[in-house]
Parts: sequence; structure tokens; C-alpha cells
Amino acid sequence: MNAEIIAVGSELLLGQIDNTNASFLSRELSSIGINVFYHQAVGDNEARLTSVLQASTERSDIVIVTGGLGPTKDDLTKETVAKLVNKELVYDNETYTRLEAFFISRNRTMTDNNKKQALIVEGAHVLQNDAGLACGMAIKHNDTIFVLLPGPPSELKPMVKSYALAFLQKEMGQQHVIESLILRFFEIGESRLVEELDDLIEAQTNPTIAPLASDGECMLRLTVKGSSTHENMQKLDALKDTILDRVGEYCYGVGEPTLEEVTVNELLTKSATVSSAESLTGGLFAEQLTSVTGTSKCFKGGTICYTNEAKESFGVPASVLAEYGAISEQTAQHLAELAKKTYDSTYAVSMTGVAGPDSSENKQPGLVYIGIATPSTTHIYSIQAGGNRQRVRVLAAKYAMYYLLKELRKKKVDD
Amino acid sequence: MNAEIIAVGSELLLGQIDNTNASFLSRELSSIGINVFYHQAVGDNEARLTSVLQASTERSDIVIVTGGLGPTKDDLTKETVAKLVNKELVYDNETYTRLEAFFISRNRTMTDNNKKQALIVEGAHVLQNDAGLACGMAIKHNDTIFVLLPGPPSELKPMVKSYALAFLQKEMGQQHVIESLILRFFEIGESRLVEELDDLIEAQTNPTIAPLASDGECMLRLTVKGSSTHENMQKLDALKDTILDRVGEYCYGVGEPTLEEVTVNELLTKSATVSSAESLTGGLFAEQLTSVTGTSKCFKGGTICYTNEAKESFGVPASVLAEYGAISEQTAQHLAELAKKTYDSTYAVSMTGVAGPDSSENKQPGLVYIGIATPSTTHIYSIQAGGNRQRVRVLAAKYAMYYLLKELRKKKVDD
Repeated sequence: MNAEIIAVGSELLLGQIDNTNASFLSRELSSIGINVFYHQAVGDNEARLTSVLQASTERSDIVIVTGGLGPTKDDLTKETVAKLVNKELVYDNETYTRLEAFFISRNRTMTDNNKKQALIVEGAHVLQNDAGLACGMAIKHNDTIFVLLPGPPSELKPMVKSYALAFLQKEMGQQHVIESLILRFFEIGESRLVEELDDLIEAQTNPTIAPLASDGECMLRLTVKGSSTHENMQKLDALKDTILDRVGEYCYGVGEPTLEEVTVNELLTKSATVSSAESLTGGLFAEQLTSVTGTSKCFKGGTICYTNEAKESFGVPASVLAEYGAISEQTAQHLAELAKKTYDSTYAVSMTGVAGPDSSENKQPGLVYIGIATPSTTHIYSIQAGGNRQRVRVLAAKYAMYYLLKELRKKKVDD
Repeated sequence: MNAEIIAVGSELLLGQIDNTNASFLSRELSSIGINVFYHQAVGDNEARLTSVLQASTERSDIVIVTGGLGPTKDDLTKETVAKLVNKELVYDNETYTRLEAFFISRNRTMTDNNKKQALIVEGAHVLQNDAGLACGMAIKHNDTIFVLLPGPPSELKPMVKSYALAFLQKEMGQQHVIESLILRFFEIGESRLVEELDDLIEAQTNPTIAPLASDGECMLRLTVKGSSTHENMQKLDALKDTILDRVGEYCYGVGEPTLEEVTVNELLTKSATVSSAESLTGGLFAEQLTSVTGTSKCFKGGTICYTNEAKESFGVPASVLAEYGAISEQTAQHLAELAKKTYDSTYAVSMTGVAGPDSSENKQPGLVYIGIATPSTTHIYSIQAGGNRQRVRVLAAKYAMYYLLKELRKKKVDD
């Protein structure tokens, strides 16, 4: 089955936001064996949306429409699709009840605009919104399936993962089973990874190998189509082993769990605890760690000592700051060890560096020292991150997480 | 003149990268008065690219095509456009000379694939590439102008700013000036905002009013087209005043600066300092504040006391935690006041609540207490945030930032 993705919203055409829904949906659809052949974006304009929808039905089996399900007048996706398929808009009782409950719980009056969010195209299959108010829906018309999804990624993503993909898989029938597996790498760039696997990538047919890079991490998504899950998993495992034979030293995880999730899991498994002392990252490391459910069992606390004054009052000796500077191996070591002591944790992580855009202490933006205090010693790493202020901070926090994970995985004898 | 943007590249349809060129181009085109009505992305496939190009000539005056100008086999934009306009590909001497010089300077041999990058559609206006090898070009055919640009943003952006916009402005002859203004709101939902301004939005022509919502914030972008900047600014100011007369109490800022930037600016202007004590947000508030350059002058430090143990060792009395719980007005108040004292700041902010997905202390996910300690007193706010764990955390940090800003802006007499 071939799909196309149509994003509705003038904010896209004005360049106010990037269409990140398109890339997310493309990855998700491809993971269940649906090829995406076109992306489009069109403004909040009925005539232009209609013409785009009409053209889509002539070339695609599945038409995913994102955005325009909100309560305001310029939200006209449902109305336009309803006209196109010759149906009325009707209230979906379940969504309406949920809406009502939401407004009652907040002591707010539900306006007519709000009620609009419970309207569906007559006969549509409702896709529940677990993160917002406007429901999504799927409509079968002639040979086309329209899937309408809300625009905000925070609402669209859970709706796709929880409901839309399952609906589409069912619609496609039980033709084949598709499985995919993600291999997660750190400390190896995408081009180097692709070079090492060049022959495998060139020869790929089934399973396929798709590389993807983001913020210092690299991923490979292996996808296989076959007649049974068992057979698929065998193929995926064989390919995984071949890949890991070559670049396994850089692979920190297999599957969905992110770097933070893998690290939290490792902490919990080892009954270890961690604390943090952050300078340039301003709390980002702790924020990422605590984004994982259940962190309260392993994260004992953190401090953000952004200024020298704060570092000193946390316990970094004034002499160290004066002699080596705040951006130094020495300060990183003190911060990590102080955090470990203050919060009484088995491990502690520190980050100090120059986020930029300006230099600091005559050190260039991007220079970061990371301290990892372990039960027996403290390791100091330095990285030179490229990119703007935000990227430097993101990379610093990610590297700190990765070095912590590496330390947690070391055999005791090495420690 | 109306434009559309066509991105060519299978990596877009696989979701490997976001189409950030589309938003960049939309902003740049809109700044010279060109309306963008469609974005599209299509794979490296001649038949599909041809059909998309053909459709575009029927509805747009300007067709911007990005990507597919590189040296490899799957780069086929020039070839496809040449066929469509019935022209040959010929070498552009100047580009060829530059290519040659590049390879000589690097002691590398120029392959036939590399030479491809100097090919242009016969008669095209060449757009020089100051950041890479493949030249861009503009082709006039019947009533359509095709503009072909390289895919990598690092090459596309300078080409657009230095050459493509100037070319298009010249083609359009007499142009108008366009200005826009962003109004930023908090504590008012998009639907309520739009309702309050319903008649203005209904009647909009020039200036236009575009609402946009994200994570608890709402924005209105006012855009005006006219013969002079002076006249435009007058119109924008008049509309802004009309809008703020109605909903001004919710407007925290005008222009590009974000909530964090406005808050940091307010702190610096008032020579005030702030510190933080975060529970459920795990450092997110401090991370957002320190994402702004220059925060070291106003952010004195923060603590992340995620567990009760950490709250107690920070100074929250065990009796308070036992009697009211960690998720309580009382704990929020203690945390804010302790942070203010510990870091010796003029203001301090605390957040404690249930991020979810599970309840805690029999309190529902989304319940958050925010403490704002001021020089003279401490205010406690509570919010009930909807959505998943990450959204609850984001909203908690945003509301904390907003309540801090409100406090900073209060006249002394109220304090």
C-alpha cells in the first residue's frame, strides 16, 4: 500500500514551524511496510485543500492528513474531507463525554468551538486522543483510506503509536508480518558507520538497513517482511550479529529504549544510585534522566551551579577555580565527587564547559569536561562539541549519560 | 506572485531528515512578498517528480525545487526539469572552472560524476554556490519560473540569501514591503483567544492575523504588506493596540523573544537574581532559563530534589513532608524559600507535583504546585496539567517561568 502525507496549516507555509510530523509518520508507516511517496503541506484554505485531497486519492491508497482538527475557524480539515466523501459531521459520543469531563474538571465553560473537537465524519473510525482534546479518525471512501490526525506532535505521536498504526495494519489484512529492530550507537559518526557496513547496505533487500543520525547518536533500523514472526526474528538476529561483529563496540542498546532509559535501567538493575552537578548544561542531564519513569529509585538529586559563586558554595575550593578555572578537569572532578558525597550516591556525574556563543576563560565554545565519580575513583573526559549553544549543551548531557552507562557496565575488576 | 516548494529526496520520505529547507524558504519568500501555497516532497524518482512538476506549473508562478543537484546517480532534478522544458543540459563555464580549481587544490581527480555538478539547463540563470560545488539555477519557461537549489541547508541558505532572492525580486519588478509582528500570550487558550478576537480575525485582509498554539502558550502573528515600512508599522501598531485592549492582560511579550528570554531580560533589567528548587521537572526550569545567553548574571543556582530524602536534606522539615506530602502547597513554599536562602537570590522558584503516569500520594498526574518566593513573601500556585509525563513537566516549567515573570513585573506597592 502506498501512502502520502498532507499537512494542513498556514503556519507551515509561513515557515513558522517545521513539518516534523511528516518525518515521524514516514518512519512509522515504513515500519509497518507502507511506502510513503509524497509529502505535502497546504494552508488553511478549503479550495486548495480540496484540490490537494482530490489529487491524492488518484495516486495513493492511504492519505494521512495532519492538522486542522482544532477548535478554531481556520481548522477545516474535517469539514473539507466530509464534503469530499459526501458525508455529514456528527458528534462522537465518547469524545463528547471526554470533552465535557475535561471542562467540568477545570471549572471552565465549554464553548461551541470546543464542542467542534468532538465532531467526526459520519461513519468514521475514531482514533482516541490521549494527550489532547481533538479526536482523530479514519474514513474509508472508495479505494482510499483517509486518516485525520491532530497537528501538535505531542498529540499526534501517541495517537499514531496507540491507535492509527494498529488500524492500518488491520486494514492491510494479514498479508505479511513486519518486524523491525533498532540498533543504537554512540561515539561513531553516521558516515563512518555507513562505511563500515557499506557492502551490507548496498546488498540490502530484506531485511533493509536504514541509518539515522541525531545529536551525537546514530541508529540503524533493520526491517524485515516475512510470513512469520519467528522467521523474521531469525533474519533480524542474523543481520544484527553480522553488524555487531563489525561495530559492536559502539552499540549501547538494541530496541526502543533510549540512552536515558537504558541508563536508568542499568542503574536499577545494579541497585546503583546517581547524582549530578551541572554547570553549562543547567539541569539538562538531570532533566533527561528524570524524564524516565521510575527514576526516583536511582536519582538521588542534583545541583546546578552555573556561576563560580555557586560552585564555590557547593564546595569547589576557590583555589581550584582560581588556578585551573571553572572549565577544567580539576573542577569537573571536584563537582562529581562533591555531588557523590552530598547526595550519598554510588555514582555521580558532572559537566562543566563553554556553551557559547562567547569563549570563557579563554576557552573555545564547545569544550566540555565531564566527570564520572564511581564507587572507587573518578574519571574525567573532555569533548569538543560543534554547533550552537543548544547543541553544545545537548551533546554535553548525552556524552555524560553515555560515559555513566559505560562505567555502569564495566566489570568490577576494571573499576 | 505565488510559489510552491518541491523537495526532492527519498531520505525525506523515509523520515530520515526533516524538511527544514521548506520553512526557511517560506520565511524568506514571504519577506519579499511571495506567497507560498504548497510544500511538497517527492523521492528520487523521475516519473513522480515529473508529475509533481507538471502539476506545479498549473497552479504556481514560481516553483522552487530543492535537492537532487549532487553528483550521484539518484540526483536527477536537472535532468527532469530539462526534459519538462524541452532543453538540453550544457556545461556552465564559470562553474566548471570553479569545480576544476577545487579538485586541483585538493590534488583530487575530477570524475564524470563530479563534472555533472557544472551542468545547467540551457539558457538558465546560474545561481552561484558559495558553500559547495553544485550550482543552482533559475529557468523561465512559459509563465513559470523554476528555481533549482541544492539540498544541504548549508549550501541552500547562502545561495538563497545572496542570489536567489535578488533574482526573484528583479523578476517581480516593483515589490512591496512586508512586516510582521508576534504577540505572545499565556494563561489563555487558543480557542478563547480566537473567540475574543473573532470579528477581527473574520475581517482580516491586510494585516492578517494568524494564531498559533504550543505547550500552554499562544501566539498571534500579524503580517502586513504595503508600500513602505513606515506605513506598515503604523498599521501593525494600530492592530496590536486593538488586540491588546481586549486581551492585553494575557500578553507577556511582543516580538521574537521567548518566555525564557523575556524573563531573563526582566531579571537583568531589575538587577534581580533567581534560584530554583525542582522536583517533578527534574531540572527543566533551570535548563530553560540557562538556555538563554547571559543567564550567569541572574541565575544563582538550582537544586533538583527529586526524592523525599533529597527534599529533607535540602531543608524541608520531615514533619511537613509527613503531614502534607511532597506534593503540597507547604512543600512548594518550603522549597522556594529554601532555594532563595541557599543561593542568596532575590527571587526563587519551586515546582513539585505528579508528572505521571502513576498517581503519587493519592494525587492525580498533572497536579503541580509552584512556589514563587519574592523579596517580601512567597506565592503558591497550583495547576492541573493535561497530557503525558513529558507534557506535564513542560507545562509545569512554563507556568513557573510565567508566574516568575508576572511577579517581576508587579509594581513594588503590590508586593
